[in-house]
Amino acid sequence: MTYCLAISLNSGLVFCSDSRTNAGVDNVSTYSKMHTFGTDGDRQFVLLSAGNLATTQGVVAQLQKDIRVGAPMNLFNAQTITDAADYVGAVNQQKERQHVSDGGIFEASFIFGGQIAGQPPEAHLIYPQGNHITTSDDTPYLQIGESKYGKPILDRILHPDSNLETATLCALVSMDSTMRSNLTVGPPIELIIYDRDSLQLNRRYRFEPGSNYLRELSVRWDDALKNAFHSMPPISWGQNWDTAAGRKS
Amino acid sequence: MTYCLAISLNSGLVFCSDSRTNAGVDNVSTYSKMHTFGTDGDRQFVLLSAGNLATTQGVVAQLQKDIRVGAPMNLFNAQTITDAADYVGAVNQQKERQHVSDGGIFEASFIFGGQIAGQPPEAHLIYPQGNHITTSDDTPYLQIGESKYGKPILDRILHPDSNLETATLCALVSMDSTMRSNLTVGPPIELIIYDRDSLQLNRRYRFEPGSNYLRELSVRWDDALKNAFHSMPPISWGQNWDTAAGRKS
Repeated sequence: MTYCLAISLNSGLVFCSDSRTNAGVDNVSTYSKMHTFGTDGDRQFVLLSAGNLATTQGVVAQLQKDIRVGAPMNLFNAQTITDAADYVGAVNQQKERQHVSDGGIFEASFIFGGQIAGQPPEAHLIYPQGNHITTSDDTPYLQIGESKYGKPILDRILHPDSNLETATLCALVSMDSTMRSNLTVGPPIELIIYDRDSLQLNRRYRFEPGSNYLRELSVRWDDALKNAFHSMPPISWGQNWDTAAGRKS
Repeated sequence: MTYCLAISLNSGLVFCSDSRTNAGVDNVSTYSKMHTFGTDGDRQFVLLSAGNLATTQGVVAQLQKDIRVGAPMNLFNAQTITDAADYVGAVNQQKERQHVSDGGIFEASFIFGGQIAGQPPEAHLIYPQGNHITTSDDTPYLQIGESKYGKPILDRILHPDSNLETATLCALVSMDSTMRSNLTVGPPIELIIYDRDSLQLNRRYRFEPGSNYLRELSVRWDDALKNAFHSMPPISWGQNWDTAAGRKS
C-alpha cells in the first residue's frame, strides 16, 4: 500500500509520501513516490503516486518524455494547474488501459500540486478515472492510499492559515500513525515544503528507515497521546453518570 | 457501517457498540447491535453484530429460539465459550446462505464474549466463514466494522492489566474518533462492563444522540489531542535537522 498527502495553506504547500511498495507480503520494495517537475522562477510541480507501480512509472515516464520532446501538451506549457491535472489524468487513463487483462485495469491515483508564476498554488487529487478534486478551506489536505489511520489528526489541526512548520509536523505525525498501524506503509519518508511564490523546490527532505528524527517523533507523539488520554477526566460511575450523562438500561 | 469492540482484561470485559445501520445514505436507521444472553450465577454472554442486518437479526432470533426450545446445542448448555462461538459461527453460516442470490451471500460478523461459571472470561471475533479468533496479551481487544480510525488509541493504551475504568474510557474515545471520521457510525452508543466472576450483566449503559457525556468526552478529547500536538517540539529547520535527523536531498 501507500500513504501520501498534500496540505494546501495560504503560505504554501506541504507534500509527504512513504516509499514502500508491495505485491504480496514477501515482495516488498522501496520506490520513491514523489516526483518533481519544474523550472525555477516559472513553475514547480510535485506528483505523489499510489496504486499499480507499473502504471505510475509509466505515467511519470510519459510526463517526462512529453516535456523532453516538447509535446503540444506537457507540464512545461500547461496554462493552469487545472489544465495540467487534466493532462496527468488523461495520461493515467491511457497507461491504465494499455495492459488491461481479464476486464481489470491497473489503477493508479495521484496527488498533483504546485504553482505556476502569476497564479496561486494548488493541489489536486487525481482519481483513476482521470477526474480530480482540489482542497477547500474546510478540508485543506488531500490523501491517497492508506488514509484512515492518519486522518483524525489532520482534521483536528489543519486550517488554511496554519503555518508551514505546523503543517509539516502534522503531516509527519499523520504518517507516523499510519506506519504504526499498517505494515505496508514505511520509510524512507519524503517531504517537500513549498513556500508560496518562491517558484523553486529547495526544501526537500528524506528520512531513512533508521532516522533519529522519525524515531524521536514517534516516541514523543506516543508519550503525548498517552498523557492526553490520562489527562481525561475519569468516568464517574455514580448516579450522576447514569442519569445526566448516559441512560442506564 | 458499524463499529463494535470488546476488550478482554484480567479484571473483566468491556463491550461497546454503535447503533447506526444504513442501506444507502438515505436509508439510515437505528438498531441496537448489542445482545445479551445468560442466567445470573451460571453464565453471561454478550453478542455484538456487524454486517447484513437481516442476517444478524436472523442469527439472534435463532440463538433465542434454540434456548427456548432447549435445542441439543444452545447458549445455555454450551460447555465452553469456544463451543458456544463455534455454534454461533455455524448459525451465522446457515443464515448467510439461506437467501443467497446471484452467488453473493449476505455476510455478517460478530464479537461474542462472556463467562461460564468456573471458566475464565473470553471474547471471540466470529468471521462470516464461521471460524473465530480470541484476544491475546499483546492484543487484548477485538473490533468489527469500521475499525481503522479508532485502532491507534487502543494499541497505545490497552494492556491486560488495565483496569475496567481505563479500558471503558479508551473504548469510548475510540468510538468518538470513529464517529467523528465516519458518518455511518453513530449513537446511541451502548456499553457493557463485565466484572470478572460476577456472572451478572448489571453494568449496562446507553448514550443517546444528545448525551451530555458523549459531547463532553468529544470536546475534551479534541482539546487533549490538540494540546498534545502543540506540546510536540517544533521541527528545527536548521542544519541539524537536515543532517542528523533527515537527509537533505
